[in-house]
Amino acid sequence: MKSKNTKYPRVTPIDLKDKDSISDLIAEFHSSGVFGPGRIAKAVDIYTEMIKQKSTVFLGIAGALVPGGMRKILTDMIREGMVDVIVSTGANVTHDLIEAFGGEHVRQVPFKSDQELRDKSIDRIYDAFVADESFMKLEDNLQPIFKEIWENNKDETNTLVISTCKLMELLGEKISDEDSFVKAAYDKKVPIYVPALADSVVGLQLWLFSQLNRTLIDDMDDLGSIQRLAWDSEKAGAFFLGGGVPKNYIFQSRLMSPKSFDYAIQITMDRVETGGLSGASLEEAISWGKVKSESRMINVVSDITIALPLIFQATLNNLKKSD
Amino acid sequence: MKSKNTKYPRVTPIDLKDKDSISDLIAEFHSSGVFGPGRIAKAVDIYTEMIKQKSTVFLGIAGALVPGGMRKILTDMIREGMVDVIVSTGANVTHDLIEAFGGEHVRQVPFKSDQELRDKSIDRIYDAFVADESFMKLEDNLQPIFKEIWENNKDETNTLVISTCKLMELLGEKISDEDSFVKAAYDKKVPIYVPALADSVVGLQLWLFSQLNRTLIDDMDDLGSIQRLAWDSEKAGAFFLGGGVPKNYIFQSRLMSPKSFDYAIQITMDRVETGGLSGASLEEAISWGKVKSESRMINVVSDITIALPLIFQATLNNLKKSD
Amino acid sequence: MKSKNTKYPRVTPIDLKDKDSISDLIAEFHSSGVFGPGRIAKAVDIYTEMIKQKSTVFLGIAGALVPGGMRKILTDMIREGMVDVIVSTGANVTHDLIEAFGGEHVRQVPFKSDQELRDKSIDRIYDAFVADESFMKLEDNLQPIFKEIWENNKDETNTLVISTCKLMELLGEKISDEDSFVKAAYDKKVPIYVPALADSVVGLQLWLFSQLNRTLIDDMDDLGSIQRLAWDSEKAGAFFLGGGVPKNYIFQSRLMSPKSFDYAIQITMDRVETGGLSGASLEEAISWGKVKSESRMINVVSDITIALPLIFQATLNNLKKSD
Amino acid sequence: MKSKNTKYPRVTPIDLKDKDSISDLIAEFHSSGVFGPGRIAKAVDIYTEMIKQKSTVFLGIAGALVPGGMRKILTDMIREGMVDVIVSTGANVTHDLIEAFGGEHVRQVPFKSDQELRDKSIDRIYDAFVADESFMKLEDNLQPIFKEIWENNKDETNTLVISTCKLMELLGEKISDEDSFVKAAYDKKVPIYVPALADSVVGLQLWLFSQLNRTLIDDMDDLGSIQRLAWDSEKAGAFFLGGGVPKNYIFQSRLMSPKSFDYAIQITMDRVETGGLSGASLEEAISWGKVKSESRMINVVSDITIALPLIFQATLNNLKKSD
Repeated sequence: MKSKNTKYPRVTPIDLKDKDSISDLIAEFHSSGVFGPGRIAKAVDIYTEMIKQKSTVFLGIAGALVPGGMRKILTDMIREGMVDVIVSTGANVTHDLIEAFGGEHVRQVPFKSDQELRDKSIDRIYDAFVADESFMKLEDNLQPIFKEIWENNKDETNTLVISTCKLMELLGEKISDEDSFVKAAYDKKVPIYVPALADSVVGLQLWLFSQLNRTLIDDMDDLGSIQRLAWDSEKAGAFFLGGGVPKNYIFQSRLMSPKSFDYAIQITMDRVETGGLSGASLEEAISWGKVKSESRMINVVSDITIALPLIFQATLNNLKKSD
Repeated sequence: MKSKNTKYPRVTPIDLKDKDSISDLIAEFHSSGVFGPGRIAKAVDIYTEMIKQKSTVFLGIAGALVPGGMRKILTDMIREGMVDVIVSTGANVTHDLIEAFGGEHVRQVPFKSDQELRDKSIDRIYDAFVADESFMKLEDNLQPIFKEIWENNKDETNTLVISTCKLMELLGEKISDEDSFVKAAYDKKVPIYVPALADSVVGLQLWLFSQLNRTLIDDMDDLGSIQRLAWDSEKAGAFFLGGGVPKNYIFQSRLMSPKSFDYAIQITMDRVETGGLSGASLEEAISWGKVKSESRMINVVSDITIALPLIFQATLNNLKKSD
Repeated sequence: MKSKNTKYPRVTPIDLKDKDSISDLIAEFHSSGVFGPGRIAKAVDIYTEMIKQKSTVFLGIAGALVPGGMRKILTDMIREGMVDVIVSTGANVTHDLIEAFGGEHVRQVPFKSDQELRDKSIDRIYDAFVADESFMKLEDNLQPIFKEIWENNKDETNTLVISTCKLMELLGEKISDEDSFVKAAYDKKVPIYVPALADSVVGLQLWLFSQLNRTLIDDMDDLGSIQRLAWDSEKAGAFFLGGGVPKNYIFQSRLMSPKSFDYAIQITMDRVETGGLSGASLEEAISWGKVKSESRMINVVSDITIALPLIFQATLNNLKKSD
Repeated sequence: MKSKNTKYPRVTPIDLKDKDSISDLIAEFHSSGVFGPGRIAKAVDIYTEMIKQKSTVFLGIAGALVPGGMRKILTDMIREGMVDVIVSTGANVTHDLIEAFGGEHVRQVPFKSDQELRDKSIDRIYDAFVADESFMKLEDNLQPIFKEIWENNKDETNTLVISTCKLMELLGEKISDEDSFVKAAYDKKVPIYVPALADSVVGLQLWLFSQLNRTLIDDMDDLGSIQRLAWDSEKAGAFFLGGGVPKNYIFQSRLMSPKSFDYAIQITMDRVETGGLSGASLEEAISWGKVKSESRMINVVSDITIALPLIFQATLNNLKKSD
């Protein structure tokens, strides 16, 4: 709504009277346009345009997203064609596979101390929990799959040299759980990179396996292939769920290329003032040539698990409307 | 959803397939149940119960809520009977009156430096803006109202001694803008306390006025009346939008009473570790007797302007359903 | 240290070899010059210059500073002539008086739940604690002082009309504890404003007292006198320990004057993105005319109780050196 | 100081009168004992005991520590025997090597936009900066070293298979800059693990090199060796500067062992409520068996670059005193 008095648009107060859809909510966020709602509305705009412009969408996944209930949304983002490349922490893959193999994340576990949980073999992730049993299911399922992958892909020196990207693909092939994002990525041919795979329970399982079956992660192959993807993309967008390795790895994929990211969205609670990359502004990335000054970008300061469902759903609605 | 393996409920991944209402979203937040979504869902539960149990609802308003687009929601909360007592910063009253008297908050004002804004007479509140002109409208409208209030309420020594609560009521009476929360509070007989009224532009205007018309704010009368309200409430709930003076003032209203708050909801980004009251946990208030250990409480860690619309709308839907 | 390669100064790594004084540390912070250390070093510079330039120094005190161990530093700042005007929350005055009257803040109180503390009559402020007994000492001492003040200052209608500034002065006069900042302010003729006095235990005590002895806080007189101080200051500096009412009240003291603050320092953990004043950037204040673009300012993002001792001590050392 | 009234120790106000050393400051932090100062004092206690008890000290390095001026302190920690094992992000190694090879981090670079920096070939890390030229020096120096390492260590298939730990050792051997932490670690035989080496400019340089000289990072060997170190440690302490991969990698090193960490210190600004590991409480790690309930731990909520110099210096003083 145009202002009566000035040439600038009004901060139109959010009004939900007789409105109840998430799209209505985002429309109201759009016309209030400031603070958190303004940022979420802009993220929806940018994500919609990113996809409509046929950009290669690089999704960074950090933080406890799967334990925090984001698994199905990640899967839906992949299945709806809203993601082209994933860079994940090892933990999110680990927790996805836990659920894929019959384990679970639970809540409302009463406890007086973390020692009590330890005694009950329940691991805590803030107010989410995983029983050790779920990790055992992971182990029981992973080891034979690793064996099969090893047998089929080892070289003449009886060594498996494999990129994380290829490993994720082969794991995805073995999963039947349709809600798994690793499975969805396999189905939709979306590569998953896990640059710090060793830094996770899946990594530890692979290490255990490698004690009897020589295995090497081909990090260099991963680096080459993601740079090729970045180089070959006419347009590219980055969507960062949290910071950490996934954010840096995605951004550096275009560091050696003449091209920059055309779009960037970040959802994080990390602060800018400590200088760490996780909380760094997207504008800073212009100086590095990772994005350019004409790129559209927004940093949403929010718990990811609150903002992502809103952004996902409103963007999907936008895409369906324009079909 | 019950877990297959354990006696604890599952963190059921949020699934928005074929769902698009805010109530659906909150239902999904409820069944994921952890991190931010779990807290928002719990806030909806508590707010719904607070109202259904006919508690006196004390709403604390701090932070730039009106400039941030929350004005209509505050008004709707009052008009829908979801609030019984308000404690506000002077700033939120100021910005409500600015809009009530024809001024505006605007956005997307391009600027290279804050000096440029200064030169254009535009004041900045992060990415919201107010033209000095809007403050002039406030002045032009407030002064004659102050005069009228003064004439009608001064004592025999030509002094107006008035509580902020009474002053807000008399101001509300003069406002025709139905979207004003000060007006809505007047219409619905919801008292508004402004313990630090002097710390705002409305306070400065009152000071200007008082130079020729002796005026005293009766802070003690405010203190007495809010304590009476707290004392007389069978059940009481506190809903804190931000911390600051409103949070403390509401909590201390039951400090001298044998009763504690039965419900408490807080939305804030402030941290607990610095020891300040704004970020303090609600549990801490048990030690002070402000709430009790059986009270239901939740702290939502979020930008208020993101979480409040969700909590408001879902609670309203709950209340309508159960009518 | 100048860079070898560029025209810009180096981020010289902090090197504490054979250095052990706080001044050495700040010198190292100065020559590293970025992130938190850079901000602290700049705060020391600005605070030093602020005082050397004979600015009127307005100190804002918010957050649990006295419970957090800052009481003596506040007192020393006053006694060393580093503060000219104070604006405080009611809570900091309350906790200062608690100690002045023989009460205490304690720590390392073991507790399983806040209910246990409640049962023991111990109030919690994060990891600091106050026994109810300390509040009773406050009451026992305050009430007779209020009575004496009332008798000596009431008007012909048996009403005490008093500004918070005058009340703090009269309270300070009655205190013998040299470590009290209220006492130190009295000794050094530093006015203390408490714009939301009613929002504190001292305020509640005054309300109790006022039930039998009519008392009115003259907020308008406070507003007038702080504006006069601001108007009359050749140069002025603002030092904000936390945000809240003290920050806004100090900043607005020059809102109606043609002058702006020449210096501003803020220490806070509050974020800028939510739009609230407590976390607002100091640059934003340029658009309001509260500071000007030539003003020197810095926002230190830190727990106040960590940064303040460093800034205080290093500034004091600077001042002594230059004597 | 014991309280007069209760059995609990007092929050003794910090008093710097006639005190000026960092050790004095920490002693005052110790006797105030709450909020941030209490946490810093406890970190000094724990770090001192950790070393005196001959624990294996695992140091995690995340965030922009080297650009933020912490390089010399990291080096001193190693040279003073205060660190036994390092897990670092690739970025901190990259920035250490930049300085080791003659590059620099600079500050006070004026800029109107990040595009202007881009045009000047200067990269920004919040308010620290690195010229592209410094990255070129890194490249010029790294490539021949990689070649030499490759020639000396390749296997019969002309492939270099190397753990990050070995690679860091061989790099350290080539560095003459005594202030480099990679060099200091080499000198003191402190292994450096870089689990996400590929996620950094050093990683990109290695990828470039590997295009003509087949190179594989042996992540599994790293995982095995750090677990062996953890397993073999009688006592172990974790010191986390930031979170991310280094925190998780250190903690998981004892996940498969029957032993837990006996000590843990964390400095971070990340929040606990989002569920991410970087901000996770150390107590949570008890449920995972990474630490045990008798372990001594503390989380310091601060900009690392402010708290680390204090903790380092005071701990070193403690150690020297007790020599």
